[in-house]
Amino acid sequence: MKAYSKYKQGLLDNSLEHRSAIRNGSYSGTTSGLAPGFVQGNVVILPSAYAEDFYKFCHQNPTPCPLISVSEAGDPSMPALGKDLDIRTDIPEYLVFRDGQVAETLTDLTSIWRDDLVTFVLGCSFSFEDALQSAGIPVRNVDSCSNVSMYRTNIPTKPAGPFKGDLVVTMRPFSPKDAIRAIQITTRLPKAHGAPVHIGSPSLIGIRDLSKPEFGDPVDIYEHEIPVYWGCGVTTQVALEGAKLPFAITHVPGKMIITELLNEELSVL
Amino acid sequence: MKAYSKYKQGLLDNSLEHRSAIRNGSYSGTTSGLAPGFVQGNVVILPSAYAEDFYKFCHQNPTPCPLISVSEAGDPSMPALGKDLDIRTDIPEYLVFRDGQVAETLTDLTSIWRDDLVTFVLGCSFSFEDALQSAGIPVRNVDSCSNVSMYRTNIPTKPAGPFKGDLVVTMRPFSPKDAIRAIQITTRLPKAHGAPVHIGSPSLIGIRDLSKPEFGDPVDIYEHEIPVYWGCGVTTQVALEGAKLPFAITHVPGKMIITELLNEELSVL
Repeated sequence: MKAYSKYKQGLLDNSLEHRSAIRNGSYSGTTSGLAPGFVQGNVVILPSAYAEDFYKFCHQNPTPCPLISVSEAGDPSMPALGKDLDIRTDIPEYLVFRDGQVAETLTDLTSIWRDDLVTFVLGCSFSFEDALQSAGIPVRNVDSCSNVSMYRTNIPTKPAGPFKGDLVVTMRPFSPKDAIRAIQITTRLPKAHGAPVHIGSPSLIGIRDLSKPEFGDPVDIYEHEIPVYWGCGVTTQVALEGAKLPFAITHVPGKMIITELLNEELSVL
Repeated sequence: MKAYSKYKQGLLDNSLEHRSAIRNGSYSGTTSGLAPGFVQGNVVILPSAYAEDFYKFCHQNPTPCPLISVSEAGDPSMPALGKDLDIRTDIPEYLVFRDGQVAETLTDLTSIWRDDLVTFVLGCSFSFEDALQSAGIPVRNVDSCSNVSMYRTNIPTKPAGPFKGDLVVTMRPFSPKDAIRAIQITTRLPKAHGAPVHIGSPSLIGIRDLSKPEFGDPVDIYEHEIPVYWGCGVTTQVALEGAKLPFAITHVPGKMIITELLNEELSVL
């Protein structure tokens, strides 16, 4: 067993507590704001026949798809992310894709688990929202208790095998001063999408109307605020639609896997 | 004598060559683009009676006034900045202030040098322009062979003794992508003004018209470009005007002291 510092052990109880509540079905909401300080992940579960191509897709598109951990085929545990973590039960809600379409949502994968499934866990912007707030920078979607605004852009990802599609970004508005600071802070977190991919004019990256995000909720943008855009893990869901795999599973956006890694453990610099 | 690496010795010839040409009067133009890779400095020369207050002013306003080196009173050499550097002769052109007003410009201070004069050398944005260009980011004022645009803002500096006044900023326009990268790169150079103090709307910091800089030259700003503003050493000249000292000397803006420090020696991270 990994020896944790006392500091981390104290925090861990919080991570475990939330994962237990999700596992036993007593919580199935979004995980935003839960277990502060801990890395949450985007999850993509695929038959092993597609694993190599998906590895390649993540490698070629590290900003939307920062790979944190990959399971052994058929193994629902991911000890690097949590001692007792079971990927079949520890996410509040799953999307099951069949032939590129969402076929059903489930809160437990046990009944449909297969021996050839490989789980990819990718970093998530919740980690950097935590870092921004720790630095005293208000995050609009958090403060307004809404899901972050997400948009399809006209920036193509680099395709790999069947996986292709345009980049999806999240957008958060900031004062100019906070925008500068947010760029600095998120640069330190390449495994949580890193620095923004764009600032300012939405039309430059193919976004027509900031008040109509394709995923998540719209947020207010005040005068003189600058929209700041980051790569988003939902890019993988668009790539999954494009790939039209016979079978794949992801988390419902906003309902992530809570790990036992600290955000600061992923931070560079 | 400090032992230099062969790499640096090769570069040093370039730094020395330019300083010699300036010293012997064969060059008196701006120093932008000269001795690439080497730190250039803003210079403020004051009677020692004002040195403590000016130290305090720099300490309290590190973004416009990043202090690199300070001389002994009366000593025109600054061995930390160059083996044979003589601050009386090695700047292309000087402004002599009397009672807060520019009284004359000189190319040599030997005739007016005093035993009580203390020289403050502050970092300069030429260092980060060098770093930006090394990273493949075009810098408009360099590419258009003009002086950078400088503006008085409505952001007050923190006063110290007689030194007070509003912050002066430089502005460079960038594409959104390059603006993000420029924030990252200049963050690594706190001794060359560091990260920007503002991006976007000029009116937010009291600038009325970007096409009419108070110092330097205007530059073209293309559609979708974002103006990015950095603290500027000319802030000290505004503070000198405010201080109305009986006697002080600075360099003519754009005509800096060329040192033997490498920009990379000032870089953090």
